[in-house]
Amino acid sequence: MRVAISTGGGDAPGLNAVIRAIVLSGLRRGWDVFGVERGYAGLLGSARFITMDRESVKGIVRFGGTILGTTNRGNPFRWPVRQADDTWIEVDRSDEVIESFRQLALDALIVVGGDGSLHIAHQLCQKGLPIVGVPKTIDRDVSGTVMTFGYDTAIQTATDAIDKLHATAESHQRVMVVEVMGRNCGWIALHSGLAGGADVILIPEIPYDMERVYRKIREREAEGRHFSIVVVSEGARPKEGKVTVKAAAQVGGAERLGGVAEVVAAQIAEGTGKETRSLSLGHLLRGGSPTTFDRVLGQRFGTAAVEAVADARWGHMVALDPPDIVLVPLEAVTGAPNQVPPDADSVKTARAQGICLGD
Amino acid sequence: MRVAISTGGGDAPGLNAVIRAIVLSGLRRGWDVFGVERGYAGLLGSARFITMDRESVKGIVRFGGTILGTTNRGNPFRWPVRQADDTWIEVDRSDEVIESFRQLALDALIVVGGDGSLHIAHQLCQKGLPIVGVPKTIDRDVSGTVMTFGYDTAIQTATDAIDKLHATAESHQRVMVVEVMGRNCGWIALHSGLAGGADVILIPEIPYDMERVYRKIREREAEGRHFSIVVVSEGARPKEGKVTVKAAAQVGGAERLGGVAEVVAAQIAEGTGKETRSLSLGHLLRGGSPTTFDRVLGQRFGTAAVEAVADARWGHMVALDPPDIVLVPLEAVTGAPNQVPPDADSVKTARAQGICLGD
Amino acid sequence: MRVAISTGGGDAPGLNAVIRAIVLSGLRRGWDVFGVERGYAGLLGSARFITMDRESVKGIVRFGGTILGTTNRGNPFRWPVRQADDTWIEVDRSDEVIESFRQLALDALIVVGGDGSLHIAHQLCQKGLPIVGVPKTIDRDVSGTVMTFGYDTAIQTATDAIDKLHATAESHQRVMVVEVMGRNCGWIALHSGLAGGADVILIPEIPYDMERVYRKIREREAEGRHFSIVVVSEGARPKEGKVTVKAAAQVGGAERLGGVAEVVAAQIAEGTGKETRSLSLGHLLRGGSPTTFDRVLGQRFGTAAVEAVADARWGHMVALDPPDIVLVPLEAVTGAPNQVPPDADSVKTARAQGICLGD
Amino acid sequence: MRVAISTGGGDAPGLNAVIRAIVLSGLRRGWDVFGVERGYAGLLGSARFITMDRESVKGIVRFGGTILGTTNRGNPFRWPVRQADDTWIEVDRSDEVIESFRQLALDALIVVGGDGSLHIAHQLCQKGLPIVGVPKTIDRDVSGTVMTFGYDTAIQTATDAIDKLHATAESHQRVMVVEVMGRNCGWIALHSGLAGGADVILIPEIPYDMERVYRKIREREAEGRHFSIVVVSEGARPKEGKVTVKAAAQVGGAERLGGVAEVVAAQIAEGTGKETRSLSLGHLLRGGSPTTFDRVLGQRFGTAAVEAVADARWGHMVALDPPDIVLVPLEAVTGAPNQVPPDADSVKTARAQGICLGD
Repeated sequence: MRVAISTGGGDAPGLNAVIRAIVLSGLRRGWDVFGVERGYAGLLGSARFITMDRESVKGIVRFGGTILGTTNRGNPFRWPVRQADDTWIEVDRSDEVIESFRQLALDALIVVGGDGSLHIAHQLCQKGLPIVGVPKTIDRDVSGTVMTFGYDTAIQTATDAIDKLHATAESHQRVMVVEVMGRNCGWIALHSGLAGGADVILIPEIPYDMERVYRKIREREAEGRHFSIVVVSEGARPKEGKVTVKAAAQVGGAERLGGVAEVVAAQIAEGTGKETRSLSLGHLLRGGSPTTFDRVLGQRFGTAAVEAVADARWGHMVALDPPDIVLVPLEAVTGAPNQVPPDADSVKTARAQGICLGD
Repeated sequence: MRVAISTGGGDAPGLNAVIRAIVLSGLRRGWDVFGVERGYAGLLGSARFITMDRESVKGIVRFGGTILGTTNRGNPFRWPVRQADDTWIEVDRSDEVIESFRQLALDALIVVGGDGSLHIAHQLCQKGLPIVGVPKTIDRDVSGTVMTFGYDTAIQTATDAIDKLHATAESHQRVMVVEVMGRNCGWIALHSGLAGGADVILIPEIPYDMERVYRKIREREAEGRHFSIVVVSEGARPKEGKVTVKAAAQVGGAERLGGVAEVVAAQIAEGTGKETRSLSLGHLLRGGSPTTFDRVLGQRFGTAAVEAVADARWGHMVALDPPDIVLVPLEAVTGAPNQVPPDADSVKTARAQGICLGD
Repeated sequence: MRVAISTGGGDAPGLNAVIRAIVLSGLRRGWDVFGVERGYAGLLGSARFITMDRESVKGIVRFGGTILGTTNRGNPFRWPVRQADDTWIEVDRSDEVIESFRQLALDALIVVGGDGSLHIAHQLCQKGLPIVGVPKTIDRDVSGTVMTFGYDTAIQTATDAIDKLHATAESHQRVMVVEVMGRNCGWIALHSGLAGGADVILIPEIPYDMERVYRKIREREAEGRHFSIVVVSEGARPKEGKVTVKAAAQVGGAERLGGVAEVVAAQIAEGTGKETRSLSLGHLLRGGSPTTFDRVLGQRFGTAAVEAVADARWGHMVALDPPDIVLVPLEAVTGAPNQVPPDADSVKTARAQGICLGD
Repeated sequence: MRVAISTGGGDAPGLNAVIRAIVLSGLRRGWDVFGVERGYAGLLGSARFITMDRESVKGIVRFGGTILGTTNRGNPFRWPVRQADDTWIEVDRSDEVIESFRQLALDALIVVGGDGSLHIAHQLCQKGLPIVGVPKTIDRDVSGTVMTFGYDTAIQTATDAIDKLHATAESHQRVMVVEVMGRNCGWIALHSGLAGGADVILIPEIPYDMERVYRKIREREAEGRHFSIVVVSEGARPKEGKVTVKAAAQVGGAERLGGVAEVVAAQIAEGTGKETRSLSLGHLLRGGSPTTFDRVLGQRFGTAAVEAVADARWGHMVALDPPDIVLVPLEAVTGAPNQVPPDADSVKTARAQGICLGD
């Protein structure tokens, strides 16, 4: 067997554990394992292949990032090509991917990626490529699996940061607004907010009313708690008809439109008179040594993917259905993103403890 | 409602999150919440009660340990009492616990503890006390729930330590034997071993044959890998008839019987000629700031326990059935401990990557 | 002896270690020790005093923040007072501070603060108050001492963040611009940049030329290193006549003027064509559990301050002159801030390894 | 110029920063830089050389261990050789080192090592080899420099562990005895003990009297503090004529002689009746990602060593004389080890706060 690994999209802590597990368990089956650099681009034209041996994956479990490049934004079905007149068009180059796969005499491709990459994998599979998928997203928003690697490290990094901000918020009697990743789903904000002892948590699934936020901060003030921690998903948004983001920026005296944390901070300063600061953790959450959970889950996913290849379960991806690893069809990822349900146990836990969710 | 919290057994990271969640969500329901210091002893004779207000739980989510004392070793059904002749007998003082509960006009007791404490809670419940349980064990060995708080922090601490030992093992070309908690079950060793990139993992569920261990270390030597990491549960034991622990100690030239890590290290030094060192992480694993997961799970457990009290679900304990929190009868904890099944996915993951499990 | 502690300015990790050392060593001498909340404001009108006993400082060494409030921005020599017509004037209330000190029958005041607070302390001392100072700044910019507590924790937090960003910068082939504290001096940027393996470090002491920055990034590109890490002090500024900050913002296509990291990132994106991201670590650096160094230095400072009080060394502050703690006159802090000398050993170390300092 | 790097003795966090700085600054001068694997053994017979380019040191600053092997225990002046009759004799092979150096056409050798390795370097230098030294010891016991890399990381790791043990000691009302490295000097125990809030610190420089230790623990008990933390250097020893280690082991009921932590723990259990546990941090302290301080100091040392080579300052080693890096003659390391002076500021700080030092 000749098996190649391709990783797509942003990196996620635990990705190296997946790669290492595929390599080690593939080699033990006597297979040849290859790494494709730069995602799908590595299968087009300038194919960049690395023969993966044990030495190539030595000690990588504890490192963030990925030993394979992941600047894959290319979709081989809609590949941008520059025309003579300097305009760009999109071209279907999927046949080249398949041709490249055949020329390399590959028997299987394992694609590790988010919903975009896995959707392309599904399409390539339908054109005949023998593909197995491994879901990857630190937002925990891929559907079809209850968890992916990277998420646990992200919430740990976010919680550590909130812990640090707590001391300074209290010492300076300030409101601190912390923005974390999460365009469509609020898992990172909700869980790091709970763990960090946040007073307000704003997530995309629950449009917020700033009046509720002000009230919470004022209540704390009245109780002699002169500081507050607000955790916001990057995709959090206000209730319609209440306060728009644009208006908010003007209210705050800012002439510009910042990220959601900046806007919310400006509103809080205006609405409560409290000194307020904002901080966006952004890319910090993607980095760092993976947590134990992510390293273990990565290895379980990688090993299960090799088993799926051995069993020729093309068109499937590995998924976590605790405590088991299962296989689900690749089209499962095309479902609705895995958002926070309004009655999620974590939501109830937040409300029961008096945390303001903005509604 | 007047509700008391009692914590028993060793501390576990996340315990303060449980306490805080009970207090905050109890107070929001208008209840009076009390903390009982020193476990069941606090309900006997010198009852030590603390009125829990919001201030008493401020900022405690991020701290290890417990704000209530946990030196509870006493079983009120079998309480040791010193006789006039200086001998000790065991006395059933459970009626005093019930009397003390009545005098304090309590409506409910929430017991946070391991299988021992919860078993006692079950017995007290049968005598009429309105009790709800919260399972606690960092070994992950309580049955009835797939996970408890503290375990995630313990494996993270163990993995961090193994990471540190990796560099020095490689630099000095040594074998390092690391002992972690786990008398009856090997979850901590298995998951921290996987995450730390261990070469050998020995757990109570799989009796080990030292010859397999030697072989693995020799194989690595032959591949030019002059160091190895061995992770051992404190309860790991050799296969019968092969090499006994006692014999092992003699083989190693040691005149004494150390912990399992010391014995295994002595055997490896003897059996492979490699310079070998051992380290027992012991109590380190119980301490430290809880991980995000443990803080969130602790809060979910605490909140769910308060809901169970509100619903008068006496005789039940909260449990994690991912992704939900459920209630199970307290007698569930008296079942077999939650050991690593021989075909657990993590076991397969270890084997597939060539990790030696000693069999 | 009756001794009071006042802390001023922003918090710094290690501040609690100072407070605890003063309390413990003061109590052992049989003194009464008091904490003044809210800086100098605590000595005006609504004086807020706390009697400090051993219990009040229990376990605080390992926590960031301060157990005394530090929202002190008030200068008793120039206290803002609102007039009947709603305008504000500044009033000299220093006599009230002295009066308040006398009424409380205090024998000494220990002021822990940055150059502003210590300058006021110096003035109060000249009016007759028996004061000893303890320098505090995480920027390491107070003159008169080669180091203060908080700095070591700040550079550790910054380095940890840069480590995390490294993996994602490399995986995504991006330039990451990281802004750290330092308005007047570049110690934090220089040392965290060195430790984090930065490619470019821009500090206030060395005005930068963006062309040099572009060249460095292009050189790396040519060597196959498709990512770069740029660390910038918040007070870094371009060489005059080259590229102004304002211009830079326009060049980058941004309609607004962000922090220095945002501006530099916009310029790099424009000047090199590389995908570039910026992140400001801001307040993260003030928080968190202090490093061992800061905890020890804090305790040494606190203990030495008590000794200085016992010796009636009024008008002096403790200072680090490695490996000794010495006393220097309070006016020493009014000297030039402790900037990075152009020939500092760390600057030479950066240059020798090919790090671009922007000149 | 052709320059080789040799590292000897145990690894220390920051060693990779030294190596990288030598390589990067050497290459920038146009030199060829080589790494010698396995210490002096690499210069005998089977010389193992690695050509060091930029790629070989990429990203290594943040890792513990060393990219060059350090199993160097060999002294080329007294090299063990097995005779025909299976006995061993020691042979002077230093001429072979010099011959090997010449054959490789090397111009300089940079030796990074502890006092043993540097002493050998001094002897080789006297025989004509152009050598510059870099001191390395995590115990901080090398004389001639006030600090070496690795020490700061070691005390940070020890402090983190003591922090973790604090919570569990308090929860279980136990005495915890923690053993840290330090055969001849107590810097690690003293500084991590101060930072971790230890109640008792026992170091080699101050022989201890167990009666003082018992008294301290009893005093705490009387104050309602039912736990204590004792930090012990591995080289701590009792006062003569008071309690010998052997006696102590018998008193404790143990039939065996453990490490100093075990013995002290057994004595405390016997002498105070408190439940007591011991833990030896051992090799943990050598590992892990270096702190910012150690990464920066390592780079400063490496860069300064290259400068010393360029200036032909043979027979010298780099040293820290804060805030400067200076050169001192290699024979400086043969002086008395850098022990804790009885009147060290840190000792006074410990005493002033009521910490028991055992005397």
